[in-house]
Amino acid sequence: MPDRIFNFSAGPGTLPMEVLEQAARDVVNFNGKGIGLIEMSHRSKEFMAVAEEAEALVRELLQVPDNFKVLFLQGGASTQFAMVPMNLLGPGKKAAYLNTGTWSNKAIKEAKFFGSVQVAYSSEESVFNHVPSSEDYQVDDDTEYLYYVSNNTIYGTQFHELPKTDKMLICDMSSDIMSRPVDFSKFGLIFAGAQKNMGPAGCAVVIIREDLLDRTPENVPTMFRYKTHADTGSMFNTPPCFSIHVIGLVLKWLKKLGGIPAIEKINRDKAALLYNAIDGTDFYRGHALKSSRSLMNITFNLPTPELEAKFIAEATAKGFDGLKGHRSVGGCRASIYNAFPREGVEKLVAFMREFEKNN
Amino acid sequence: MPDRIFNFSAGPGTLPMEVLEQAARDVVNFNGKGIGLIEMSHRSKEFMAVAEEAEALVRELLQVPDNFKVLFLQGGASTQFAMVPMNLLGPGKKAAYLNTGTWSNKAIKEAKFFGSVQVAYSSEESVFNHVPSSEDYQVDDDTEYLYYVSNNTIYGTQFHELPKTDKMLICDMSSDIMSRPVDFSKFGLIFAGAQKNMGPAGCAVVIIREDLLDRTPENVPTMFRYKTHADTGSMFNTPPCFSIHVIGLVLKWLKKLGGIPAIEKINRDKAALLYNAIDGTDFYRGHALKSSRSLMNITFNLPTPELEAKFIAEATAKGFDGLKGHRSVGGCRASIYNAFPREGVEKLVAFMREFEKNN
Repeated sequence: MPDRIFNFSAGPGTLPMEVLEQAARDVVNFNGKGIGLIEMSHRSKEFMAVAEEAEALVRELLQVPDNFKVLFLQGGASTQFAMVPMNLLGPGKKAAYLNTGTWSNKAIKEAKFFGSVQVAYSSEESVFNHVPSSEDYQVDDDTEYLYYVSNNTIYGTQFHELPKTDKMLICDMSSDIMSRPVDFSKFGLIFAGAQKNMGPAGCAVVIIREDLLDRTPENVPTMFRYKTHADTGSMFNTPPCFSIHVIGLVLKWLKKLGGIPAIEKINRDKAALLYNAIDGTDFYRGHALKSSRSLMNITFNLPTPELEAKFIAEATAKGFDGLKGHRSVGGCRASIYNAFPREGVEKLVAFMREFEKNN
Repeated sequence: MPDRIFNFSAGPGTLPMEVLEQAARDVVNFNGKGIGLIEMSHRSKEFMAVAEEAEALVRELLQVPDNFKVLFLQGGASTQFAMVPMNLLGPGKKAAYLNTGTWSNKAIKEAKFFGSVQVAYSSEESVFNHVPSSEDYQVDDDTEYLYYVSNNTIYGTQFHELPKTDKMLICDMSSDIMSRPVDFSKFGLIFAGAQKNMGPAGCAVVIIREDLLDRTPENVPTMFRYKTHADTGSMFNTPPCFSIHVIGLVLKWLKKLGGIPAIEKINRDKAALLYNAIDGTDFYRGHALKSSRSLMNITFNLPTPELEAKFIAEATAKGFDGLKGHRSVGGCRASIYNAFPREGVEKLVAFMREFEKNN
C-alpha cells in the first residue's frame, strides 16, 4: 500500500493534501490562539471570521449575485429534498421534476409531501444512462419551479446545458458544484452537500434568491425555514464549524489554482483521459450515453461481472480505492472530483491497459 | 498568551488535548490507510467501524438498554426541538413542558406547530434562576410526555432529581450528557448536541425507545422521521463523519478516565471549588439558587457591570477565555464541562481572589 492511496470514492471524496494538513493543524491550535478550531465558540470573532471568509469565497468563485443568500446548513442534500418544497410549495401548488436517477427520485418523494409534482421526464427505463435535452419534455404552465440534479453520481451522467424553460430552476449540484460556472439568472435556489467537491461531510451549501425567503408557509418549523438561517448568517444555532472551516480551506486552494475556469479545464482533461481509455477498446464500456457523460463520475463495465470483481480487487491492492460501482447499478465507477489528481487518472488508465492485456 | 488557553466557552467547549491530537492525525491519514478520515467513504468498512465504535461507547458509558436506539443526527439540538413533537405529537395530542430558560422556550415554540402544549412550570419571572421540584407543578393527565432541559447553560441551573411523573420523560441533555448516569426506565427519548460534553459541533446524539419509532404521522418527511435513521444505523444519507469520529475519541478518553462515575466525582469537585470561591465573599454573587446550581455552567455577578467588564478583560488577557455571560443574562459564566481541567478552575479561583483584592 502506497503512503497515500488514490481515492476514487463518490463521496466523501478526496481532498487536497495541503487542505488536510492545514485542517489538522487547526484542529489542535487555530492560528496560534492556544485553542483548537473544533472547541472554539461559534460566536467568537475568530470563528465568525472563518465563516465569513468561507461565504466570501463561495460568492467570489461562483460569482453569486448580491440578491442571493449563501447558507451553510446541516442535514445534507437529503434534508434539502424536503426543505425545498417545504419552503417553496404548499397545498395546491405544483412543481416539475426531471427524474435522472436515485437522487431526483428521492427529491420527488419528498416534494409530494408538500404539493403536487409533475415528473416531466424520466430516464428510468434506460437505467438512467442519460439526461434529457430540453426538447424531450414539457413543463406544465402552473409549476412553481423546475427541479433537476446537475450531475448524477450513481449513473455517471451530467447536464451539459441548462434546461430551457421560463420557470425558475432549482438544482441539486451536490456532485459538480464548483466545477463550472453557474448562471444564477436562471436559478431560484441551488444546493450541494459539501463532501464531494467542497469539503468534508456535515454541511450543505444552499444559495437562495432573497425574494424566495418570504414564501415559506407559516406552519414550517423554525429550523426548516430558509429565512431563519438567512437572517442569522447561518448562525441561528451552532453551525457545523469544522466542515465550514474546511470548505473555506478547499475554496482557498481552488482560488489559488485559478478558480472555476482553471478547474473546469483540468476536469475536462482528466475526464477525457479516462473516457478515451474506455472508448479505445471494446473491453471497457461506458454506462452513460456520450452526450450525457459526467466529468465527475465515470461509470463503466467490463465484459463480465467476474472480471469487474477481479479488476476492482487488483486495483484496490495497487492503491486505487473506491472503484466499485454503486450497488444499484454495479460495474465500476471512478469519481474524479476537483481535488482528484491527474496523476491518479494517468495511473488508473495505465492499470486498465495492463489489466485488459492480462485478461 | 500561554500555549494553551483555558477555554470556559459554553459550547463548542474545550476538548481533551489527546483527543485533538489524535483527531488531527486522523484527518490527514486514518490508521495508516493512506487516506484522511474526512475524505473517506462513509460506507467504507473503516468508517463503519468508527461509527459502530462510537455507538458502542455511548451504550456502554450510559448503560443504554437494548430497547433504545442510538442515533447520530445533524441539525443540532435545535432540530430536535421540532423533530420530537413532529414524531411524537400530532393533531389533538398534547405534551407538557417545563420552561426553565431559552432552550425550553424554543422547544415549546416548535411543539406548538404539532400539537397542544401545557407549560406546566416556568421560572421566567425570576430570570430562570432555578428549576422546579416535582411538587411545584402538575402535569395534565392527557399529555404524551413531559419535556425538560436537564441543564440550562445560559442561567447555570440544573435538575438534580428527575421530575416525578407517570408520564414518559423527554430530555434535552445537550449540556450535561455524559456527566452523570441516566435512568432510562423513565425516558422515552433523550438528545444532546455533541459540542459541549462529547465532541465538536455538527452532530446531535438521540437515544430513543424503539416502540416510539412507529408513532410518527405519515406526513412527516423522510429525513425528519426517527425511524429512517434507526433503520439505517444513522447512515440513511452521508452522516457527519468527522464529528462522529471525534465523539468516539472523546468517549474513549472518558472510558479510560473511569467512565461516568469518575467524571461525576471530578465535576462535583471542580464545581465545588468555584462555588466555594463565590460563596466565600460578597464580592461575587451566584445567579442560580443553590438548590438548582449547575455543575457545568457557573453563572455569577460582580458588584457592578463595570467591574464585570474589567474582570472579563483581565481574565481574557491572562488566558481565561469565554467567561462573558450570555447576552440574555449578562454577568460572568464559567463553563466547566467534562474535559475542562481542574487546573483551570484552580487558577481561575486564584485570579478571582486577586481581582477582588485589587478592586
